[in-house]
Amino acid sequence: MTHPLRLGIAGLGTVGIGVVKIIRQKASLLEQRTGRPITISAISARSRDKDRGVPLEGYAWESDPVALAQRDDVDVFVELMGGHDGPAKAATEAALSGGKDVVTANKALLAHHGHALATQAENADAVLRFEAAVAGGIPVIKSLTEALAGNEITRVMGVMNGTCNYILTRMQASGLSYDEVFAEADALGYLEADPNLDVGGIDAAHKLSLLSSIAFASQVNFDAVETEGIGSISIDDIHRAADMGFRIKLLGVAQMTGPGLEQRMSPCLVPANSPLGQLEGGTNMVVLEGDNVGQIVLRGAGAGEGPTASAVLSDIADIARGTRISTFGQPATQLTQPATSKSQTPAPFYLRMHLLDKPGALAKVAAVLGEWGVSIDRMRQYGHADANAPVLIVTHKAQRKALDGALAALPKTDVIQGTPVALRIEEV
Amino acid sequence: MTHPLRLGIAGLGTVGIGVVKIIRQKASLLEQRTGRPITISAISARSRDKDRGVPLEGYAWESDPVALAQRDDVDVFVELMGGHDGPAKAATEAALSGGKDVVTANKALLAHHGHALATQAENADAVLRFEAAVAGGIPVIKSLTEALAGNEITRVMGVMNGTCNYILTRMQASGLSYDEVFAEADALGYLEADPNLDVGGIDAAHKLSLLSSIAFASQVNFDAVETEGIGSISIDDIHRAADMGFRIKLLGVAQMTGPGLEQRMSPCLVPANSPLGQLEGGTNMVVLEGDNVGQIVLRGAGAGEGPTASAVLSDIADIARGTRISTFGQPATQLTQPATSKSQTPAPFYLRMHLLDKPGALAKVAAVLGEWGVSIDRMRQYGHADANAPVLIVTHKAQRKALDGALAALPKTDVIQGTPVALRIEEV
Repeated sequence: MTHPLRLGIAGLGTVGIGVVKIIRQKASLLEQRTGRPITISAISARSRDKDRGVPLEGYAWESDPVALAQRDDVDVFVELMGGHDGPAKAATEAALSGGKDVVTANKALLAHHGHALATQAENADAVLRFEAAVAGGIPVIKSLTEALAGNEITRVMGVMNGTCNYILTRMQASGLSYDEVFAEADALGYLEADPNLDVGGIDAAHKLSLLSSIAFASQVNFDAVETEGIGSISIDDIHRAADMGFRIKLLGVAQMTGPGLEQRMSPCLVPANSPLGQLEGGTNMVVLEGDNVGQIVLRGAGAGEGPTASAVLSDIADIARGTRISTFGQPATQLTQPATSKSQTPAPFYLRMHLLDKPGALAKVAAVLGEWGVSIDRMRQYGHADANAPVLIVTHKAQRKALDGALAALPKTDVIQGTPVALRIEEV
Repeated sequence: MTHPLRLGIAGLGTVGIGVVKIIRQKASLLEQRTGRPITISAISARSRDKDRGVPLEGYAWESDPVALAQRDDVDVFVELMGGHDGPAKAATEAALSGGKDVVTANKALLAHHGHALATQAENADAVLRFEAAVAGGIPVIKSLTEALAGNEITRVMGVMNGTCNYILTRMQASGLSYDEVFAEADALGYLEADPNLDVGGIDAAHKLSLLSSIAFASQVNFDAVETEGIGSISIDDIHRAADMGFRIKLLGVAQMTGPGLEQRMSPCLVPANSPLGQLEGGTNMVVLEGDNVGQIVLRGAGAGEGPTASAVLSDIADIARGTRISTFGQPATQLTQPATSKSQTPAPFYLRMHLLDKPGALAKVAAVLGEWGVSIDRMRQYGHADANAPVLIVTHKAQRKALDGALAALPKTDVIQGTPVALRIEEV
């Protein structure tokens, strides 16, 4: 196989330019490793004239990514535009319907249309790969799909949004409030145009839904991910969690339970001395658990030009080597639609609330929790200058449903000030 | 492709039986993931009659693994016997010369004969894969060979012998001496029949030599690994390293330097708060560094039935899916024989020695180090009851050669008692 593998690249932002650079700079290394030259036939982006710091004259230009995806001199369509509808979707569909392979870094596209696109790819005998869509340069899709093929996957977890982890660890290190650190992150350009994609947990939930599909042979179901962002985390939560030996992380967890598939993306407490607890800054970490392999932890840069382009190249090199893998690790026709299990797995919870400073207040809270079957492991009341006493409770294992019942009943005691915060303590 | 992939398994120890169990218990899962049934045609082991807890009557028996490797009903020869010569080598060669694919967990075989076997495989258009040979269930071969295809690898590091890491972390936690913990590990069955394979660093050096070959496109050169075991590490070293914020790990490092390929497997100090420093017990960790991806850290069980069998299945599933990858990530004919660079990369060193308690002793030591161009960053002299003062020195970055020169010259000062210990402080 010495005929070149010819790419059409749509999207020349940070990642697209990173891919172009690697193809140019490592041509002989890539040919040595894959057995054939990898070349770029054509490119497409919003603006043709922008100086991107790389010579692009040698490549045909298409202003329409759909036209790019249909070119005869393109074997692999590399979709790096982003967005879950519009041109990215249209061009991916066009490429697949022409029987071309597709490599994408677009988690939103796959979270929304992954099953349909995987089905289309298989019907056309094409492959659709997306290593770069989850956790940047960390080979998590490859590990889960290929390396753990001999395992029943029992749980997948991860910190998969570097911006959220940056904000949470920066709050811890600096003592600054959420709003102050959010403003810092914004100034540093760490946030998406719509920051809710990051801090609302949506971007990370996209990624989790893709991992779930592979791990549990299920059709991608992003809507079933229980998603909660980090906006309610106060600097007090960070300090108090630390006092008890925990760190707060925006943690994704997917696991199959009796009633169905549970997918959660929410701020959780994890032990400070666990690999997840020790994860600082913008780094990502994914934990894969299988019945044979036990626990595998993968850590690395979750974003950025080099790491993300490296992941795109992983897929391109596989295709150049002739590797053909189903998008979600098994034929799309065999992917199931399991029932959704909402936070079925019991866990201890961290509760933070403010009590009005009157006699018997604490007893009333304890009584409500008890009525809902939520038992208390540890409780601390902190010193206070005003009429509201900050109270922190760690429960024994409880079902989220029972806890939510108790939280809904608490205001009726008339001793609660504001809305209590409840964070799951995840066993990792 | 619905014809089954038929295995011949030689070696029915822990790993072999683990593989048989997975093939039996996960038949439909494996078929769903790989697109074809995976079956066992024949098996071979030293003793036929031993009860291994799994029904084996359905498989043809071969007392000679070479005959097993040559059977017409075997597509893939799975070599789980171990040993770098004798039957493992003969049967692997027989399988490859018959054009059969081979999956092995045998690091010693590949460390000694990897290049010849890879060449033989390619001439026969067969593949030879070895994910299980390095770091058990951690997908390190797959990550390095496939996921990082778009990277120039800059450094590979790892803690790849769980027994040594168990001994070192157990010493730290218990305060027991090396000899006491060694005896414990022996009683727990953690040690190889020849314990020097573990504590002498040889097993880990085998693994490092395989990673080097992939990372630097070089022919496996185990003899060029500078190997030093953990037998000289005292409980005092462990405590003093901890005092200074370090942990001692048996760490493998491979990197390409100006003069050539440097491969070291030796006890090193690493920061206590780094992922490597935090690695406890028998767990393995491999760090892969590439020019685009940055640093990827992979962590998991490095041994045991389930994790190792999981890695064997990773290779088998790849072959069932039709994936064909060169043994060391590029054609064997293109692997080079780089010059060997002996500890060329400068590093700070930890030195521990005992000085005779006489005036000017410390000055003499400092003078010798200075003559050899080794400058001192920190020095501590500890309180002592006898005539020998324990002294601990941390140097600035120095070349190992200069340090060895100084160490050789120190006895001439007549103030040194015993042999100084020198450990590299690795930047991780």
